[in-house]
This record gives sequence, structure tokens and C-alpha cells, in this order.
Amino acid sequence: MGIPPVSTRVAPWSYAEGKLFLLDQRLLPHEESVLECGSAAETAEAIRTLVVRGAPLIGVAAAFGFCAEARRVAARSPADLDGALALAAERLAAARPTAVNLPAALARMLLALGTSAGESAPARVARLEREAEAIATEDREACLRIGRLGAEWLLARRKRGGGAPRTLLTHCNAGALATAGIGTALGIIRTLAADGPVAVLADETRPFLQGARLTAWELKRDGIPVTLLPDVAAAATIASGRVGAVVVGADRIAANGDVANKVGTYALALACRAHGVPFVVAAPTTTLDPACPDGTAIPIEFRDGEEVLTIRTPAGEVVRLAPDGVSALYPAFDVTPAALVDAIVTERGISEPPHAAGLRAFRP
Amino acid sequence: MGIPPVSTRVAPWSYAEGKLFLLDQRLLPHEESVLECGSAAETAEAIRTLVVRGAPLIGVAAAFGFCAEARRVAARSPADLDGALALAAERLAAARPTAVNLPAALARMLLALGTSAGESAPARVARLEREAEAIATEDREACLRIGRLGAEWLLARRKRGGGAPRTLLTHCNAGALATAGIGTALGIIRTLAADGPVAVLADETRPFLQGARLTAWELKRDGIPVTLLPDVAAAATIASGRVGAVVVGADRIAANGDVANKVGTYALALACRAHGVPFVVAAPTTTLDPACPDGTAIPIEFRDGEEVLTIRTPAGEVVRLAPDGVSALYPAFDVTPAALVDAIVTERGISEPPHAAGLRAFRP
Repeated sequence: MGIPPVSTRVAPWSYAEGKLFLLDQRLLPHEESVLECGSAAETAEAIRTLVVRGAPLIGVAAAFGFCAEARRVAARSPADLDGALALAAERLAAARPTAVNLPAALARMLLALGTSAGESAPARVARLEREAEAIATEDREACLRIGRLGAEWLLARRKRGGGAPRTLLTHCNAGALATAGIGTALGIIRTLAADGPVAVLADETRPFLQGARLTAWELKRDGIPVTLLPDVAAAATIASGRVGAVVVGADRIAANGDVANKVGTYALALACRAHGVPFVVAAPTTTLDPACPDGTAIPIEFRDGEEVLTIRTPAGEVVRLAPDGVSALYPAFDVTPAALVDAIVTERGISEPPHAAGLRAFRP
Repeated sequence: MGIPPVSTRVAPWSYAEGKLFLLDQRLLPHEESVLECGSAAETAEAIRTLVVRGAPLIGVAAAFGFCAEARRVAARSPADLDGALALAAERLAAARPTAVNLPAALARMLLALGTSAGESAPARVARLEREAEAIATEDREACLRIGRLGAEWLLARRKRGGGAPRTLLTHCNAGALATAGIGTALGIIRTLAADGPVAVLADETRPFLQGARLTAWELKRDGIPVTLLPDVAAAATIASGRVGAVVVGADRIAANGDVANKVGTYALALACRAHGVPFVVAAPTTTLDPACPDGTAIPIEFRDGEEVLTIRTPAGEVVRLAPDGVSALYPAFDVTPAALVDAIVTERGISEPPHAAGLRAFRP
């Protein structure tokens, strides 16, 4: 297919000599501020507080936070490297529970650490940094491949069915701000945009407003037209017939194809099924968790209800929305049953239902 | 059934001698401020800008705004009463398009005006005020009856099915702040609460946050426990099995039972159906529109996208959430197909599917 090369102007992280620099996603779109993490503890805190988010990107951030810790310990007490990094991995893995990319990236880092036993401390650090770079590079390449495969799948489906507009609805942010590359869901959208005009409808995605703040910001930066929807309007918009497909990311995909993703995803899948609109999940194979037989085994993070009861202004002021004394429930993710997912697009290929068989073929 | 009498401490409006006093719902829960409307134009503006909202209550407000205008014109140029009030009705009816209670209340007022032709101006005004009072009284009584019938239906269903918890999920605000009485959906919830302990889950209902600001405020005021949910979390919460029923209001119900209500309602109905949770619509018969054969004939209000792109702080500051140059789409209502509605509770009885026949029996 003749789609030109796809890229993005968005760069949410960098790493140099023991310092991980993270674009503070809490302050977007109003302020582009970079936070420096020089240790595992600082990186874990940045992950926990959503300075950096997005399943693939928190894997990458954790890997480099691990490297930052390695540099720090190697400079002060190289003999403690193994013990300190075992603790660091534990701390980083505990920062958020749902995305499997986080423990998966840390498992790779610990394996690289084990492999380097007996080498000098600087050699070990260098090996760890190469491993983290590899994780980032693989994610970057996975995004490109997911974008290409997903775009081809949608274009082919459109040819068969005819007439579906190039209007795509997405939820949360599965973009360049959530990965080391062009994004997963937004990777597909960026690839389609390179092929021809697209229109993107983005759920605002309360309470953290990843759609309003992050997806809108990064698509605008890359010149892709985006219109926001309040989350409540997605089902009506799907019912209206103007949505060609819904494309979302994933935080963890169980062996049977059940998909944990940002809360609100499940309702989109139900609306898509009710109206025959393709529901597409885009995720690198690092998001697959064969150890989870189905969605019930995926740990769902409940975040502090205060995040629902308040909103943070660009000036950093925390404004209360609800009356004092009222509490809120905030499951940060939900599970979409495999049967509602028309395609799971990974860098190794596309799974269509039944997903259990399809996904098995993509395992490393 | 031995449910004690039900009441509320919430009073969103009053009227005295040509002045309509409206609790400014834009400022809740932080500030209880009353806005005075002395004309139809001021009342229409209050309805348009959501000082007052909720299908039954905007009917009541329009009726009293009509009376305020009548007093105003009668004092200055009584001969112009008919012409001025015809214009006033047009202006008030145009304030918002979706709720049928608004034109229905105004049709009653115009009929009363016609009936009074030949009477003195003060007598005509008095007749109009009696008609507006009647509209309010009927709505107050309808709420009590809806509350009773809905609570009995849910309790009976619970007895048959066994075990469903007394946890009810609601959307937007169909309460005392949306009616002249105890509310429709919240009328059912208040009645259940008088019978025994209940727990209410309230969607925050972006962008106007009727749930977070209004439902939470009015239930708290009446001592009914309420927990907020981001709208995106409703489907997952329904899937979790902890919701006994979803109870919402309606802005207009078509002859076939299709229900227009605050956008986001449709997604709740889909989730309820997927998990066998009763989906209940509570509305006075003034909300029925036999002239609309089905939901496609219901006019859906699209409000200014700015309301999605911004949030108003308690200090009255309007804070931008999204990047500059990004637009938003904001349909304020959606349509839930009749087939997904397990019960439509009116003051004249309860319709179960197929609704076309059930609703026909409730027409005046």
C-alpha cells in the first residue's frame, strides 16, 4: 500500500546520562514543562502521579528510571547494585497496577542485570541502558507496524463495506504521549492521515481529560483535525452513523482477548456492537498477558476519588466540583469482553474473533 | 405498602406578585444564589443559560415567566396583553428545544389566556397565575405518585428476583432541582429511601456536571448517601454487579417509547441490557409526546462546544481545558430506543415493553 512514512513531532521523554526527562503530562496542553527523574523513586512517583502515563510509555519510563537508579547507585556504592535495583524494580512495578507493560519492562531489565553479573559496574550500567533503549526502539517500531496494519485493515474493510467515512473516534490517549513512537490507536490514525484526509473525534476522558488535554494537543501539533466530545456523547455520536470506526489502545489484554483499557472503553464497545461500527484495539504484544486467562484476572486500579471531585486549573489551582462531604468512586480502567472486539492490532498481526487462538500466535 | 410520606428540603423556585425567583443552578453547590425574573425575556434567558433546568421545572418556570410578563404588561398597557403574551410564549418556547414540557406548559397558559378574554386585566392575570400554580401542583403530585409507583415496582421486582441490592445509579439530575416536587428519578429514590436504606451512585454528567453539582447537593441536603462516578465508569460499575437498577428522567418520550434524556443515558441503557440490570425511566405524562412517532422526530439540542472546552470555577472563572483552536461537539441529549427501557414510570401508571400500547393508555 502506498502510504508515505509516518512520524510525529511529539516527544514525551528523553534520557541522558542517568537522567530521565519527562514532559509533565499533567500540565498539558497549557504548559510544556519537563520533569527530571534521577532515581527509581522519582520515576515511580512520576508514574504514580501521571506525569507520564500510557501503558507502553510507562514501561519505557520504568526501564529508564531503572537505569537512572543504576547510574546513581553505581556512582556511590557499586557493590549494592543488585540489591538496590531489585528494590527499585519492586518500587517501580508498584507504581500502577493495571498496565502489564510496566512489570514486563522491569522483568527485562532485571534479566539484563542478571546477565551482566560479574561485569564492572559501568559495564553493567551500559548494558542496562542498551536494554532500555531496545525496549524504546521496539516500541517505536511496533507503533509504526501497528499503524500500518491497522490502517490497512480499516481501508480494506471500508472497501468491502463501502461508504464508511474516514471519521474515527478514540478514547483517552493511545498516542505519541503514551508510547515511544507514533502511538497505537493514534498510530493507526496518523497512518490513515498520511494516506488521505481523516477526522478524529476524541472523548474528553474525564477525570484526567487525556482526550481534551493530550490527544487534542498531540493531534493538533501534527496537523490532524480533532473535535472533542464529552464522554457521554460518544454513544449518540456512534448511533448517528458518522463514526467509521472506534480505535482505542489497551493497558492489558488477557489470553482470551478481554481488553483492559481506560475506563469508558467498554461503553464504546457496546455502542459499536449495537450499531455495527468496527471496534478496534491497538496494542503492542508487550500488552498481551498470557498469564491472565480472562478479564476477571486483570487487576483494576482504583484511583483516589478526589481526582473526580476536583479539577486542576492551568494555574495549578485545584477546584472542587462537588459538595463537600460527597465521595467518588474512580476505577481507572474497565474490561471490554473479547467478543465485542472486532480486531486487536499488534505489531505481529491482527487478531479477529475468536481472539484466544489469534493472540496465541502473536506470543513471543 | 407502608412507605412513610416523602418530602424534600430542596426548593429551586418561588413566585410572588409578578416575580419569579430561581435558585441559580449554575452556581450550585458552592453558592445558593437566587435570580429574580420579572419578564418573559428574563425567564427565557434563565432557561437558555441553565439557571433553571430539568424538563418538568422548565415547564413550571416558563408558566410563571409567562405570568410575570402578564403582570408587567397588565400594569403598563393592559390592551396589549394578548399580543405581548403570544410573543412571550414564542420566546419562552424557543429557549430550549428538546423538553416537551416547555411548549406543553405554554400551550396551557395560552389556552387559559384565551379563556379569560373579556375579563379585566387583573382578573386575567389572576387566572394565569392560578393556571401556573396548577401546573406546579400537578407536577408536585405527579412526582409523589411516580416515586411511589417506581419504588413499588423496584421492590416487587427485587422480591421476585431476590438479592439485588438497594443501590441505584442515576444520571444528570431528575430531582427536586428538575421538578416542582421530590423529583422523578430522585422521587423514586427518595421514596425507596423512606422505606429503607439506599445507596445512590450518581454520574457526574459532564459537561454541566448536573450529577456532581446538583444531584449530589440535593441528595446530601436530604440526608441520602450519594457517591459520584465519572460518567465513563458507569458501564464498568453496572458490569460489576453492584447496581440494582438504573433510574433516570426524561425530556421527551415519543409515542413508541423512545426516550430523549440527558446525553449519556443511551450508554447506560446499553450497559443495563448487557448485564440484566433494570433500566427505568421516570417522567410525568407531560413528558409524553404522542406527536413524535419515534425518537428520530425528537429535536436534539446541540449546545455550544465551548461548554465542553471550558469549566467554570466556583469563583466564576471560566477555565479552558483543551488546547486553543480545538472545537467540540455537544449534543445535550440522546435517544434511548424503547426496547431498552424496562419501565417508564408515570404518575398514571407504569409502562413495560412494548411501550407504544402502554403509553397510549396514559394520555390525557
